[in-house]
Amino acid sequence: MTTEIISIGDELLIGQVINTNASWMAVQLNDAGAEVRQISCVSDAADEIQRALREAEQRADLILMTGGLGPTHDDITKDVLCRYFDTHLVMNDRVLENITSFFQRKGLPLTQLNKDQALVPEAAIVIDNPVGTAPGLAFRKNEKLYVAMPGVPYEMKHIIQTFVIPYLQKNGKGEKILHKTILTQGIGESFLAVKIADWVAALPSTIKLAYLPSPGIVRLRLSIRGNQPEEMMKLLSEEAERLKTLIPDFFWGMDNEKLEAQVGKMLGEKSASLSTAESCTGGYIAHKITSVPGSSTYFKGSVIAYDNRVKEEQLGVCKQLLQDFGAVSSEVVEKMAEGVKNLLKTDYAIAVSGIAGPDGGTPEKPVGTVWVAVAGPDGTVSKKFLFGDERERNIVRAGTAALGMLRNQLLA
Amino acid sequence: MTTEIISIGDELLIGQVINTNASWMAVQLNDAGAEVRQISCVSDAADEIQRALREAEQRADLILMTGGLGPTHDDITKDVLCRYFDTHLVMNDRVLENITSFFQRKGLPLTQLNKDQALVPEAAIVIDNPVGTAPGLAFRKNEKLYVAMPGVPYEMKHIIQTFVIPYLQKNGKGEKILHKTILTQGIGESFLAVKIADWVAALPSTIKLAYLPSPGIVRLRLSIRGNQPEEMMKLLSEEAERLKTLIPDFFWGMDNEKLEAQVGKMLGEKSASLSTAESCTGGYIAHKITSVPGSSTYFKGSVIAYDNRVKEEQLGVCKQLLQDFGAVSSEVVEKMAEGVKNLLKTDYAIAVSGIAGPDGGTPEKPVGTVWVAVAGPDGTVSKKFLFGDERERNIVRAGTAALGMLRNQLLA
Repeated sequence: MTTEIISIGDELLIGQVINTNASWMAVQLNDAGAEVRQISCVSDAADEIQRALREAEQRADLILMTGGLGPTHDDITKDVLCRYFDTHLVMNDRVLENITSFFQRKGLPLTQLNKDQALVPEAAIVIDNPVGTAPGLAFRKNEKLYVAMPGVPYEMKHIIQTFVIPYLQKNGKGEKILHKTILTQGIGESFLAVKIADWVAALPSTIKLAYLPSPGIVRLRLSIRGNQPEEMMKLLSEEAERLKTLIPDFFWGMDNEKLEAQVGKMLGEKSASLSTAESCTGGYIAHKITSVPGSSTYFKGSVIAYDNRVKEEQLGVCKQLLQDFGAVSSEVVEKMAEGVKNLLKTDYAIAVSGIAGPDGGTPEKPVGTVWVAVAGPDGTVSKKFLFGDERERNIVRAGTAALGMLRNQLLA
Repeated sequence: MTTEIISIGDELLIGQVINTNASWMAVQLNDAGAEVRQISCVSDAADEIQRALREAEQRADLILMTGGLGPTHDDITKDVLCRYFDTHLVMNDRVLENITSFFQRKGLPLTQLNKDQALVPEAAIVIDNPVGTAPGLAFRKNEKLYVAMPGVPYEMKHIIQTFVIPYLQKNGKGEKILHKTILTQGIGESFLAVKIADWVAALPSTIKLAYLPSPGIVRLRLSIRGNQPEEMMKLLSEEAERLKTLIPDFFWGMDNEKLEAQVGKMLGEKSASLSTAESCTGGYIAHKITSVPGSSTYFKGSVIAYDNRVKEEQLGVCKQLLQDFGAVSSEVVEKMAEGVKNLLKTDYAIAVSGIAGPDGGTPEKPVGTVWVAVAGPDGTVSKKFLFGDERERNIVRAGTAALGMLRNQLLA
């Protein structure tokens, strides 16, 4: 089913909020066989919302809107929808009950603003929102479905999961778009293209290939459309397997796998534990690792040694080494890895020391110079990376490189 | 100047990539006085890109496109633009020189795919891209300007800063949109609305107010449009000051201030140092703190004590305390804060212990229960929070709450 997403809110157009809602919805819709044809962000202005609706309904059969359903005066979507679908607001008892019990559960008083959220357009199908106060609103017109949802992510997610996805499952035409994504690390987009050129040339015409570069990782996405999902998936999997063998040094995973989850799984299988000692990444790697549910079974902890004294006193890096080689060196980063491994009594340890920038660079060690070490049962290895000028990007790339090195050690 | 952004790429429509480019651009455009009327994400398909161009040019005078200029076969924007502007590709020597020196600097060989990036539409104004290989391309038609940029964030950013912003400064009509944002913490949107209702009612009609809730933080944005920026900013600042005094317990900053940067500045002014001891936040707080350039002057390091043994052995939390009260308790979190403060010899320390989820909850301590402690020169305080069910959201909210508590201690 052709679908469009209209994201309503000035905050999107002035860049104050990043449109993560639309991306999340797109993933779910795609999985349910819907094709998202366009995502449009428009202002909190009645005429802009109406124009976006008119344009979207010309192209799509399912029109999803988020935003502007909140309790405050700047939330105008409900009024716009009343005008667009020629209806008016009426009090809905079930919604009022939900709102009342929502505030009771939280032990908070009920304001008039919240009570008014139980006013809904008479022509609307009201969609329960047990995790918030604004209900979802759906409208039918000319065999198309329009769904308005709150912009609060977990409220929107609830409505997508309980209303939109079941609707698609019931009314979809059966045609599906399937994807298979090959995840690579340690090689740039154009070098990858050269390496796999023959494979690309031999790819069946029904399969579409896209390159998706991000800091430290290039993803290769294969897509196919049709109504025989099993055969389609078989074709995609075969091509993905073929591709894997062409780039054994760079391939590390498939689809939505995360390096930190994969490494966690590998540690789990070995019943091995992990710690980190981080200087320039400042806790980013520990944060990535602990973002995985269940990571407490293999992750013991970290020493964030931002200050050199912490490297000396907690991690046992001797002063002489710091003086002779500097904190950003193979010698120091290896000692950091071994230090935290001993201190927290883990089987493996990652250490990172580098110059994230914008300051601290020298001609010999410019901003972006990062040393990564991995200590394991069979010893310690370290590697130097030269990233770029941007602090944030350098932290992310260092994290990806460190997890990639740990993965290689776990595979070895 | 009315502007539209067209983000090109299937990855946006299947939700594989979040459109952070458009948000970043929107901020810069807004600052330069341009009004972003719509952001549209469309597919890597010629007819979709052409349709989006036709629609956008009816509404805007400046049309910005990102994506599809890379070296690989799925990058079709250049060909689409040739057809749209009725021109053809020619080799551009300056671009070829840039590409050649780009690869030389990186010590990488030059592939044919990269050489082909020097083919540009003859009718285009070629925009230098010293940080990448695909140049920006601008076209003029009916007094409108069209700019196509690579989708790689730092390449796009370079072209916005060196070409688009100067163009706006030269050709803008002088009308500006100014914003002032008041940052609050520790209070929900509807309660805030009730507290400030009288102030909202008395707000001049020229000022528009929007509520922007995010995990742990509600932002109140005031906007005004006109061509007398000094007077407009004075009006906004006066209203923002008035608002501050109405919510002294919840107000913590203005505009794009970040809690971690503000706390860092306050520590710098006191010449005080900071450390963290993190359990359920797993390094997230240290990562936030060290995302601030220059944070090494006040931030010494952390102990991420995911495992209870690390809490005991590194932070000196005695076993008995863990047994009697559990890791998620006032007693343990205070000891963690004091432990890391002593260990890393800092003036202040933050500690967090909680149940991020999805597992680990009990009837007495459900998922979302988080204790935060702040230890300082005058002692240690701790506070219990009850967040929600989502792991990621709980980690972020715990981080915001912890930085907020530290801020209050630094103010006291």
